[in-house]
Amino acid sequence: MMTIKEKVNVEEQAIRAKKAAKVLSTLSTEKKNEALMTIANFLEREYHEILKANVVDLDNGKTKGYDEAFMDRLSLSKERIFEFANGLRNVAILDDPTGKVLSGWTLDNGLTVEKISVPLGVIGMIYEARPNVTVDATGLALKSGNAIVLKGGSSAISSNERIVDVIHQALEETDIPKDAVQFIATTDREATKQLFTMKQHIDVLIPRGGGSLINAVVNNATVPVLETGVGNCHIYIDKEADLQKALSIFVNAKTDRPAVCNAAETLIVHKEWFTNHHQHLVATLAEHNITVYGDEHIISVIPDARKATEHEWANEFLNMSIAIKAVDHVSEAIEHIDEYGTKHSEAIITENKETAHEFFKQVDAAALYHNASTRFTDGGALGFGAEIGISTQKLHARGPMGLPALTTVKYIMTGDGQIR
Amino acid sequence: MMTIKEKVNVEEQAIRAKKAAKVLSTLSTEKKNEALMTIANFLEREYHEILKANVVDLDNGKTKGYDEAFMDRLSLSKERIFEFANGLRNVAILDDPTGKVLSGWTLDNGLTVEKISVPLGVIGMIYEARPNVTVDATGLALKSGNAIVLKGGSSAISSNERIVDVIHQALEETDIPKDAVQFIATTDREATKQLFTMKQHIDVLIPRGGGSLINAVVNNATVPVLETGVGNCHIYIDKEADLQKALSIFVNAKTDRPAVCNAAETLIVHKEWFTNHHQHLVATLAEHNITVYGDEHIISVIPDARKATEHEWANEFLNMSIAIKAVDHVSEAIEHIDEYGTKHSEAIITENKETAHEFFKQVDAAALYHNASTRFTDGGALGFGAEIGISTQKLHARGPMGLPALTTVKYIMTGDGQIR
Repeated sequence: MMTIKEKVNVEEQAIRAKKAAKVLSTLSTEKKNEALMTIANFLEREYHEILKANVVDLDNGKTKGYDEAFMDRLSLSKERIFEFANGLRNVAILDDPTGKVLSGWTLDNGLTVEKISVPLGVIGMIYEARPNVTVDATGLALKSGNAIVLKGGSSAISSNERIVDVIHQALEETDIPKDAVQFIATTDREATKQLFTMKQHIDVLIPRGGGSLINAVVNNATVPVLETGVGNCHIYIDKEADLQKALSIFVNAKTDRPAVCNAAETLIVHKEWFTNHHQHLVATLAEHNITVYGDEHIISVIPDARKATEHEWANEFLNMSIAIKAVDHVSEAIEHIDEYGTKHSEAIITENKETAHEFFKQVDAAALYHNASTRFTDGGALGFGAEIGISTQKLHARGPMGLPALTTVKYIMTGDGQIR
Repeated sequence: MMTIKEKVNVEEQAIRAKKAAKVLSTLSTEKKNEALMTIANFLEREYHEILKANVVDLDNGKTKGYDEAFMDRLSLSKERIFEFANGLRNVAILDDPTGKVLSGWTLDNGLTVEKISVPLGVIGMIYEARPNVTVDATGLALKSGNAIVLKGGSSAISSNERIVDVIHQALEETDIPKDAVQFIATTDREATKQLFTMKQHIDVLIPRGGGSLINAVVNNATVPVLETGVGNCHIYIDKEADLQKALSIFVNAKTDRPAVCNAAETLIVHKEWFTNHHQHLVATLAEHNITVYGDEHIISVIPDARKATEHEWANEFLNMSIAIKAVDHVSEAIEHIDEYGTKHSEAIITENKETAHEFFKQVDAAALYHNASTRFTDGGALGFGAEIGISTQKLHARGPMGLPALTTVKYIMTGDGQIR
């Protein structure tokens, strides 16, 4: 599969990015915004070229027999490219997350202390098929004064390469070093692995994609990782749940976009509620063609439900299936979430505020919902303006990550000879 | 060296800690403070028992021929134990970092969003000889609602075990599960390695100690790490530096406590300043018995200076030696710091504010100083109240880490049936 062109030097590219990051960190907000607007304009101007490159990827994908969902993620159109451009314009109008004095004070000896936000430096982005990540991640990196090294999925290599060409043209137009955006133009997996350990040149790795990609990065990288995305999310319907709220929230969380990380994968029902309302639940499941995997209690009541195994409790379906478990108490629901949840988004449906409070206190996850759909765990939906991913880890950033997640701090001390 | 007693089950201990962490996260501030005060009182009451255990470690250390500095770090006294107790009392009066609403807003659809600070869960502390870390880390963990797994250095095992016994007594007295503080009572290095990959049970690892310990953790852990401590710190004396400030800051940063991470390890001098003032510098170096390793320019001027090699530029001396480099421009100093610094603390001495500003902009480090000593990079000195370590990484926390570094966030969404 390797061609001459694919003999890339990943380390050299990372070093170039590091050097460019120095320049990026000193750019004014206006200059960074100008770059984003220019990239947006150039993407629209060159959309035809990008579509031509996309056809190469699509043809390749057909030959390889990728499934429909995969081909859909890979596929570009004039409309989608114009959406990418508008996404960049939206990032341009967001507040610059760098250069903020987050706190400041003066010591008794007269030394002034300021904690200021600064760019992280170089972001390594490792992702799968979607070419929109190439544009989105570049926009967020540049806006926050960071350089970026992009390693996209092999299936989108032609589209990504063309998009990065356009980005480079726009950077040249705005007098910003194009080395700030590095694209690793190879389908060789070794190139990705090289990024894992380049602590000298890369400040953070952000994997975007399926569980196996994310685990490969987390388990092998010595560069710090911002872990994103796997969401084995639960909806718990309490005995004091309102029937209509319960059903509509469940349906929304399960069926609105089943393939995304904030979709519901397991429904936990209190046995009392289930006894009273199972006919409504069964009708709703049937209406939406949802396949059910249940525990003993559930399969004894719901026709056609299959027996849920460890596999169903522990993994995302990412399709129109649901695992259902019946419990005697909210604490049993919390224990199940503790065991199988991925600390992403968890919801409780109840009219009892104390039960909801208990759920909020006990469940360890980035986003917790009382009487609302888990689908709101999203930078756009929650009003963050833009999102680099949804963190399921606890350090640095948790939940939807906006621009501030791409910054760190410096403590700046100014004195006139103070010693200790 | 292994005894029957040392057959510990690290995973079981981590699981117990995780379970206890659930309880810890729901404790009131008052309850946590009561625990800290009780531990403080019990440490004072039991100081004699702790000293007896310390004698065992000291005897062992003598047999093994540890050096004086090491024995000093290992050695306890009534005064030191009473200092540990007062340290806990000081942590008790600090603001509780958990349960704070960091931000909050309401979406157009009526869904309320709150971002609140919560404990991380279980902290894994891996450290070397100093038994004070056992007390300090426990105090900070409990105050921030976290459980802690302690793996101290083998040389202090007897002291640490006795200290943890006392902590356990105090927790029982205050009705807090003693499982919240786990001590891995073994000298077996495999036990430490087991902690590296226990992502299910441990939320963060904090290594405290020398570079090799820290690197072993960073390079092998899949549990997220808060990297602390290695400080290859530089003092840059600019051509426009004031002579007295330059010398006194250099002497303080180099000689006040040469073995600590915020001590100066390399002096960079502008050639103009050096030409004018080298006699004063040489006299100062001689007065403090500082051994000099220099570049060509330096060794041609300073008598007895040895030639600095890559080793001296790249590593901490942690003793009364200094590497000295002469440069033609501040940019050359910045390049040297880029290459050899550990992003800990870097200082510029100059009367030119613009040069200082350039240094602040360009140097990538946790703490930057203009006309002040690097020795101020310390939670106590900067007024943080307490410190779990000094982070040299960029994610989560950078620089001195106080109690907030031991917290993460939850997004709490409250609705009445909102769907997307």
